[in-house]
Amino acid sequence: MNTIQIKAYGAADKDADLKELNINRRDVTAKDIEIEILYCGVCHSDLHTARNDWGGTLYPAVPGHEIIGRITKVGSEVTKLKVGDLAGVGCLVGSCSTCDSCKNDLEQYCSNGWVGTYNGPDKHLGGHTFGGYSEKVVVEEHFVLKVPANLNLAAVAPLLCAGITTWSPLKHWKVGKGSKVAVIGLGGLGHMAIKLAKGLGADVTLFSRSPDKEKDALELGADSVVISTDEEHMIAVGGKFDLIIDTVPYIHDINPYISTLNTNGTLVLVGYLGPLDPFLNTVPLILGRKSVAGSLIGGIAETQEMLDFCGKHNIVSEIEIIKMQDINEAYERMLKSDVRYRFVIDMASLKA
Amino acid sequence: MNTIQIKAYGAADKDADLKELNINRRDVTAKDIEIEILYCGVCHSDLHTARNDWGGTLYPAVPGHEIIGRITKVGSEVTKLKVGDLAGVGCLVGSCSTCDSCKNDLEQYCSNGWVGTYNGPDKHLGGHTFGGYSEKVVVEEHFVLKVPANLNLAAVAPLLCAGITTWSPLKHWKVGKGSKVAVIGLGGLGHMAIKLAKGLGADVTLFSRSPDKEKDALELGADSVVISTDEEHMIAVGGKFDLIIDTVPYIHDINPYISTLNTNGTLVLVGYLGPLDPFLNTVPLILGRKSVAGSLIGGIAETQEMLDFCGKHNIVSEIEIIKMQDINEAYERMLKSDVRYRFVIDMASLKA
Repeated sequence: MNTIQIKAYGAADKDADLKELNINRRDVTAKDIEIEILYCGVCHSDLHTARNDWGGTLYPAVPGHEIIGRITKVGSEVTKLKVGDLAGVGCLVGSCSTCDSCKNDLEQYCSNGWVGTYNGPDKHLGGHTFGGYSEKVVVEEHFVLKVPANLNLAAVAPLLCAGITTWSPLKHWKVGKGSKVAVIGLGGLGHMAIKLAKGLGADVTLFSRSPDKEKDALELGADSVVISTDEEHMIAVGGKFDLIIDTVPYIHDINPYISTLNTNGTLVLVGYLGPLDPFLNTVPLILGRKSVAGSLIGGIAETQEMLDFCGKHNIVSEIEIIKMQDINEAYERMLKSDVRYRFVIDMASLKA
Repeated sequence: MNTIQIKAYGAADKDADLKELNINRRDVTAKDIEIEILYCGVCHSDLHTARNDWGGTLYPAVPGHEIIGRITKVGSEVTKLKVGDLAGVGCLVGSCSTCDSCKNDLEQYCSNGWVGTYNGPDKHLGGHTFGGYSEKVVVEEHFVLKVPANLNLAAVAPLLCAGITTWSPLKHWKVGKGSKVAVIGLGGLGHMAIKLAKGLGADVTLFSRSPDKEKDALELGADSVVISTDEEHMIAVGGKFDLIIDTVPYIHDINPYISTLNTNGTLVLVGYLGPLDPFLNTVPLILGRKSVAGSLIGGIAETQEMLDFCGKHNIVSEIEIIKMQDINEAYERMLKSDVRYRFVIDMASLKA
């Protein structure tokens, strides 16, 4: 298979800073699209993967799965997009296409294992996939998204992970006009959850531990802010919410939030992977037919639906643009939650 | 308000055996129905209440919320049933009728607090309500159920708690032909879950720790039995089930069962009230959009729907009939799970 060599940015091992390196991309096959990357958002998963926080990282690790670019080449059978079009690539670049999940547009739950945009098995070249911290990416047509032309392109990039991760549960649990939605945590995911829930017509509340988030939350579209450490305030919103989107990425007690769910309400975890410590109490679940659920990114059709919705409602992420060379400093700032609300790399900097 | 004195069976305090005592029932008001009790099922909640295992028991405690009887008197405004009709009363005898839950036929989630058939606040006579271990009961028309005449009446009684507690989640999570349902635990609730899920057309699996339950489960209608302590067997059913009804009434690890849920699957707890120890892991929830939920008995309309379904499909509980005087011994046997699958009191014995 023919390949091209391109510049990228990645980590050589778990303790190494990210730096420039060369990787190979395949030449387009019949169903592939080649994209010149203009912008790439910076997700917490990028950092966790680069540093092997979850184990299983293959090196060199080239992160990046919030990719926006322009198409430079298409395979002979590609019909969805053409050279010169804008295009997006999110967390997924492959799946089996034959299991029940794939057939139902839920590629993210592919029972034979989906292929991540980075650190996934590369069935074309062998080895593992490389993400968007690079000049170009080559992706199967099915996994390439159309990008609304009316939006700030850099600010669209985070929709491809932070956006779809919160959009998917909003849609799955049928949020619409009149729904009461709460969001726990105001970071990359949380700020998108507020914007998208508001866009869908919901009444939106932010749960936060810090009163200093209130002003920002209201500006982003939240109708109210509840300080979760304030017991009286928590009691005042008892039984209120139809859906709570919990974006907190570290271990935390979800029990106090369960009390704020309405009958039939669901708290959906999208940020934290691990044991629910302290113990989850079943009493309020049973007494109100409440649920605790999880949700992972979103399928390709659903991602396109979200991008189209954002184009129509003029919704983008709040971003801070950085150069590729600043990525290591950006990771340190992310660890301190010192970003409002998503770093996006201007990939022109990699050419410089 | 006029009252009548009747015989009942109850506990004077948490350490006392149940014995005969007298209680008062109100004379029917315009919307009330008076029922002579023929049979009363024996639920674990009866025992827990009599012994104050959950705290909050008011004495004397007269348990019993699986009541089947014949109507002896009706108030002037009663239209649903008439004297001489069979009637059933389950766990609920009152609710606010004005909250969203009540207006949506979900009296069991009444946000102003539903009234339990026993140990609830008696708004007519003051004090607390007395259950079905008694000669008669007087209940508001709305909370009285019609009983199919073609079924064994004694065996219908447990449908009013064990039946509806498993029916409600089966219906809420849309179980039907082709659904894959698993039931954890083969007791009063578990055996009804198998029968009702099978009646709805589902493929039904019993999870059990003891291989000696297999024969019974298959006879009750289960399609298969999985021994939950057998790791290979558990792996073989990985990702299989759309709904798991967990009827286990004591603390237990639900994590191994989560792996057997399909994408979008739900494990619903109906038996155990308390902390989920060990910790529930969020990883499989997120990677498969799975849910852990709770469910409490069922609403009145839904209970009627279940009784009608059981009449049509000839479904009743498996029971062992006892005399009222044998209740204390029956409680001891229940604690050892020595009952297949529900004790039912022949209330004629109270008159003897």
